[in-house]
Amino acid sequence: MATIRDVAKEAGVSVATVSRHLNNKGYVSNDAKQIIEKAITTLNYAPNQLARSLTTKQTNLLGLLVPDITNPFFPELARAVERTAYEHGYTVVLCNAGETSEKEKHYIRSLQQNYAAGFIVTTNHIEADFYKKLDVPIVALDRNLSEAIPTVTSDNVLGGQLVANYLVEQNVKRILCVRGPLDIDVANDRMRGFEEIMKQHPTIQYDTIVSPFDFESAKKVTLQQLQHTRDYDAVFASSDASAIGVMKAAESLGIHIPKDVSLVGYDGINIGTLLSPELTTIAQPISLMGERATELLIALIEGQKMTAKRVVFPPKLVVRNSTTKGTEL
Amino acid sequence: MATIRDVAKEAGVSVATVSRHLNNKGYVSNDAKQIIEKAITTLNYAPNQLARSLTTKQTNLLGLLVPDITNPFFPELARAVERTAYEHGYTVVLCNAGETSEKEKHYIRSLQQNYAAGFIVTTNHIEADFYKKLDVPIVALDRNLSEAIPTVTSDNVLGGQLVANYLVEQNVKRILCVRGPLDIDVANDRMRGFEEIMKQHPTIQYDTIVSPFDFESAKKVTLQQLQHTRDYDAVFASSDASAIGVMKAAESLGIHIPKDVSLVGYDGINIGTLLSPELTTIAQPISLMGERATELLIALIEGQKMTAKRVVFPPKLVVRNSTTKGTEL
Repeated sequence: MATIRDVAKEAGVSVATVSRHLNNKGYVSNDAKQIIEKAITTLNYAPNQLARSLTTKQTNLLGLLVPDITNPFFPELARAVERTAYEHGYTVVLCNAGETSEKEKHYIRSLQQNYAAGFIVTTNHIEADFYKKLDVPIVALDRNLSEAIPTVTSDNVLGGQLVANYLVEQNVKRILCVRGPLDIDVANDRMRGFEEIMKQHPTIQYDTIVSPFDFESAKKVTLQQLQHTRDYDAVFASSDASAIGVMKAAESLGIHIPKDVSLVGYDGINIGTLLSPELTTIAQPISLMGERATELLIALIEGQKMTAKRVVFPPKLVVRNSTTKGTEL
Repeated sequence: MATIRDVAKEAGVSVATVSRHLNNKGYVSNDAKQIIEKAITTLNYAPNQLARSLTTKQTNLLGLLVPDITNPFFPELARAVERTAYEHGYTVVLCNAGETSEKEKHYIRSLQQNYAAGFIVTTNHIEADFYKKLDVPIVALDRNLSEAIPTVTSDNVLGGQLVANYLVEQNVKRILCVRGPLDIDVANDRMRGFEEIMKQHPTIQYDTIVSPFDFESAKKVTLQQLQHTRDYDAVFASSDASAIGVMKAAESLGIHIPKDVSLVGYDGINIGTLLSPELTTIAQPISLMGERATELLIALIEGQKMTAKRVVFPPKLVVRNSTTKGTEL
């Protein structure tokens, strides 16, 4: 299937120039118009995607399924996916699949019926079998759906270890873990890494509570726990969104971060640098992950040889003010 | 065009039940299966959207174009659009059109070629003529594209007036306005309302600087301005995202909000309640706006009589801690 990018390459002009010509908007020189038209003829590029799609059973639409568009992690990921896809002549359609498998299937079904070229899936409410049976390229991003599905994640076990080692260094005695849902494998990996290190430090106590990865839920469960006992000197929230909820819970109880309690988040979203205090976190390379997943998907779609079926990026600890004990802001 | 919703209505079961049946996943009673199949036959509901689309030149895809998915206002709006569309049997495809008209046109062209049923547009980089010429239903949301295009906004002039009146009541003497881009009409309306009230209070001074509606840009321009002069007792940021940037700029200069400077934002995004201090803001009814725009678009698509071509919701002032002078947090 020729894409607008192929036309641009063949004509030796930018995608933007081809687009301007096709849209009849903006300046394109007569010479450029001629070489673009020639490239379109050579490549049999059909502006009517849909008619062509019935033959090729493929459009240039990439479906990106996210579980919660209001968690800032996903818009940042989506922006990277979208930018990479656009550069390759594809169009990303972002679907907020929400918290139910019903909705997720609805979206996949709907986009598949419209011959989406492929999917990037950051959700995991549906059993992996459902995805394996779909006859369409799929890449899992920030989720492990199945060994058979190409996957881009960061090393969440390592991330959990980094948190634990850092808190050990800080001489904390009792930690509250506000972990993610039990059915999300990256949340389990983060806890697993954390617990591996904690086993080596049996004098450090930790309690674990479960919360969805959103502000409000994390605030609520943290408030409940802190009303029960406040005897923590650190909190590990397994997403930055949850960490924001923890901050608000602490504030409403008059608990000062970092003076009374240190707080470590997870993800490395931009908003972490805009909070007061700025959030110490395990930063995933969000843009790189989005880019790489999109490149993998496009490679699958275009039948290119896969260089890797499983890409794992290292996360890194970013220390900011939410864990600088004794420092007044 | 029969949608899954029509099938559900005809069969007298929920959309979720029809979806479960169509996907062959989850429990559906044999009786329900029979009435759903009967409804599908009656309505000639075709699961292959694309083949049918070539005849009807329409799919159940609604395109939602947003300028910046990382500004939390748009995910909140998108969630409302998505929920409403889903309830009506449509699928929302969210496009991060970014900051260029080129990309915006690329998305519209791409979705139109795939016979999207209609568009909700929250961007405004493209001249209104482009939209008017498109032969597809369009609703403008939080933007005024053209008199000819149905529009859902809140009353941004009133919002600006509410800010000004509130700051007058607070006895402020000098205000910094961090206004939105000059080519965004809602930003202009907010300033217009503000200035109307200020004309009645000539002893109050105000300076105006322009910033895109994102954290980083607002932080940067505010820092520049505050390095020039710090003689303000209030800041009016014309989006909550900008207000977060202002907070960070103030913090980095050791300026305390609200003790030294009051801060008023605009939009009413959820994250405003999670900041420290919580953000005083002009709240737009984000969910209602998204719902209403979606209902209008679906009415246009389905050829229903339009009850209103222009829906304007009233915004309201929500006072929180960022303007409670002298209150220590």
